Amino acid sequence: MQSKPEHAATAGIVCVGLGPGDPDLMSVKADRLVRQARHVAFFRKKGRPGKARQAVQGMLAEGAAEYAMEYPVTTELPVESEAYVELLSRFYDDWCLRLAELARHEQVIVLCEGDPFLYGSFMHLYTRLRERGDVRLEVVPGIPGMVGCWHATGLPITWGDDVLSVMTGTLPEDELVRRMQAAEALVVMKVGRNLPRIRRALQRCGRADAAWLVQNGTTAAQQVARLSEVGDEVCPYFAIVLVHGQGRRPEAAW
Amino acid sequence: MQSKPEHAATAGIVCVGLGPGDPDLMSVKADRLVRQARHVAFFRKKGRPGKARQAVQGMLAEGAAEYAMEYPVTTELPVESEAYVELLSRFYDDWCLRLAELARHEQVIVLCEGDPFLYGSFMHLYTRLRERGDVRLEVVPGIPGMVGCWHATGLPITWGDDVLSVMTGTLPEDELVRRMQAAEALVVMKVGRNLPRIRRALQRCGRADAAWLVQNGTTAAQQVARLSEVGDEVCPYFAIVLVHGQGRRPEAAW
Ligand SMILES: C[S@@+](CC[C@H](N)C(=O)[O-])C[C@H]1O[C@@H](n2cnc3c(N)ncnc32)[C@H](O)[C@@H]1O
Ligand SMILES: C[S@@+](CC[C@H](N)C(=O)[O-])C[C@H]1O[C@@H](n2cnc3c(N)ncnc32)[C@H](O)[C@@H]1O
Repeated sequence: MQSKPEHAATAGIVCVGLGPGDPDLMSVKADRLVRQARHVAFFRKKGRPGKARQAVQGMLAEGAAEYAMEYPVTTELPVESEAYVELLSRFYDDWCLRLAELARHEQVIVLCEGDPFLYGSFMHLYTRLRERGDVRLEVVPGIPGMVGCWHATGLPITWGDDVLSVMTGTLPEDELVRRMQAAEALVVMKVGRNLPRIRRALQRCGRADAAWLVQNGTTAAQQVARLSEVGDEVCPYFAIVLVHGQGRRPEAAW
Repeated sequence: MQSKPEHAATAGIVCVGLGPGDPDLMSVKADRLVRQARHVAFFRKKGRPGKARQAVQGMLAEGAAEYAMEYPVTTELPVESEAYVELLSRFYDDWCLRLAELARHEQVIVLCEGDPFLYGSFMHLYTRLRERGDVRLEVVPGIPGMVGCWHATGLPITWGDDVLSVMTGTLPEDELVRRMQAAEALVVMKVGRNLPRIRRALQRCGRADAAWLVQNGTTAAQQVARLSEVGDEVCPYFAIVLVHGQGRRPEAAW
C-alpha cells in the first residue's frame, strides 16, 4: 500500500487573494494555502516577475511547481481590436484546460493580487471553470489593493453617508468626469499611462487638489503623494488615484 | 530590577480590521495582534455582544482586559438631531481620553469589523487621537465586509471597466436612485430597516431583479439570496445589498 503524501490537500483549483502586497496583510487562510502549495500558478506580463508571484517571495515550499501564465503580447494588434480579444480569449481557454487537467488529482493554487473578484484576471478562468463544472473551485477573498492604498494615506476613505466610486483609468475622459461627479469618495485603478487623462477629469470636477497618488501600496516600493506634487511622466500601472470623502461626522458642524 | 513583561508590545493604540467575520479571513497581522492583546476595546450597541467582539471569540488570551464602548442610546432624541450628534461626539471624546490614558504605557487593541477606514466607528476616535498627537497610533487594514459578501454570492463584482459604487442605505430614495444610475456594480451597506427604500430605488433603476442580499457574510449565520426572493420584514443591520457588474470581457461578444 502506498503511504498518503504529506500534503494531502484536496484536489481542485483554489484562487487565493493575496491582499495589497505586504505579506503580513494576507489572510490567515491565504498564508496557510500558499505555504502548503505544491502547484502555484500566476499571471504575469512577459519578461516581468509578476506582482502576485513577488508578493509570495520566500513563502513557497521547496519543490513547489510554478506555472507562469504570461499574457499574450503582440505589437501588431491594437488591444481594443476583435483580434486581440480573440487572442486573449484563447489564452484563457488554454490555461483553463491545463489547470483543470492538473486539478483532477492535485491542488492548484492560483495567486491573485488584492481580491480576486475585483477586476481580477482570474475571473476569466473562473467563469470557464465553472462552466466545465468538473473541477472543485474555491476563491479566497483578499484585502483589495485600494484598501492598502487608502491606509497608506493615513486617512479614512468614507464617512457617514459618503458614496465611494471605484473606477478604472481606462474610461474615456467624459465618462470619468460623469462618474466622479456622482460620488464623494473616489478610487481610480489602472493608472499608469492613463494618469494625464485621470488628472484632467479630476480638474474638470474641481477635485484634483484633493487627490492622492499611491504607487505600490503596502509594499517596500510604496510611494504616497498628493497628486498635485507628482508629474505625469512616470506612473506605474500598479498605482491608484484616490480622493477621500469628507462626509458628515459628529465632530463636524452639520 | 524588574523583569520585562512577557508581552512587551509597544504602547499605543492599534486598531485592527477583522475582516468580514470568518476568523480565517483575518490578516496574519490582525490574528497575531488579537491573540497577544492584553487590552481589547470594541464598540457595541447596549445589550448586544458586538459584532467585532464576536468575531474574535475564542482568540483572546486569558486575562485580557476588555473595554466595551457602548454607543449612547436615547429614545428621547431623534438620531438626526443636533442634540444626538452632541451626545455621540461626547461619547467619542470620553473614550478617546480613556484609551489615550491607557495607551501611555500599554498597547490597546481596538477591534473593528471589516476595514476600519471604510465607514468604521473607529475613525471618530482616530481623528481625535491624531489631533492630540501624544499617542502612538496604528491602523491595520482588513477585508471589507462587502468583499466577503460578494464572495458569498460566488460571482465577481467588477469586470473590465465597470464602475463600482458603494453607498449606505441611509440615503434618501432619490439620492439612491441617482447614485445607482451612475454605476454598473453596486454595494449598499447599512441595510436593516432601510431595505424597503433600497428596494424601491433599485426598482426605479430597473435593477431590483439583478440584486442580491447577503446577511452576515462569511459568518456561521451567513444567508445569501436574490433580493426578489426576500421580503422586507426581517433584515438585520449587518447585511449588504449588491448588484454585480456585467462589463466587457474576452468571452463576451463586444
Ligand atoms: C487588474 S487590477 C487588479 C485589482 C486587484 N484584484 C485588487 O483587488 O486590488 C490592477 C490594478 O490594481 C491596482 N492595485 C492593486 N494593488 C495595488 C497596490 N498595492 N498599490 C497600488 N495599486 C494597486 C492598480 O490600480 C492596478 O492597476
Ligand atoms: C458601520 S459599517 C462598517 C463597515 C466595515 N468597516 C467594513 O469594512 O465592512 C456597518 C455595515 O457594514 C456592512 N457589513 C460589514 N460586514 C458585513 C458582513 N460580514 N455581512 C454583511 N454586512 C456586513 C453592513 O452593511 C453594515 O451595516
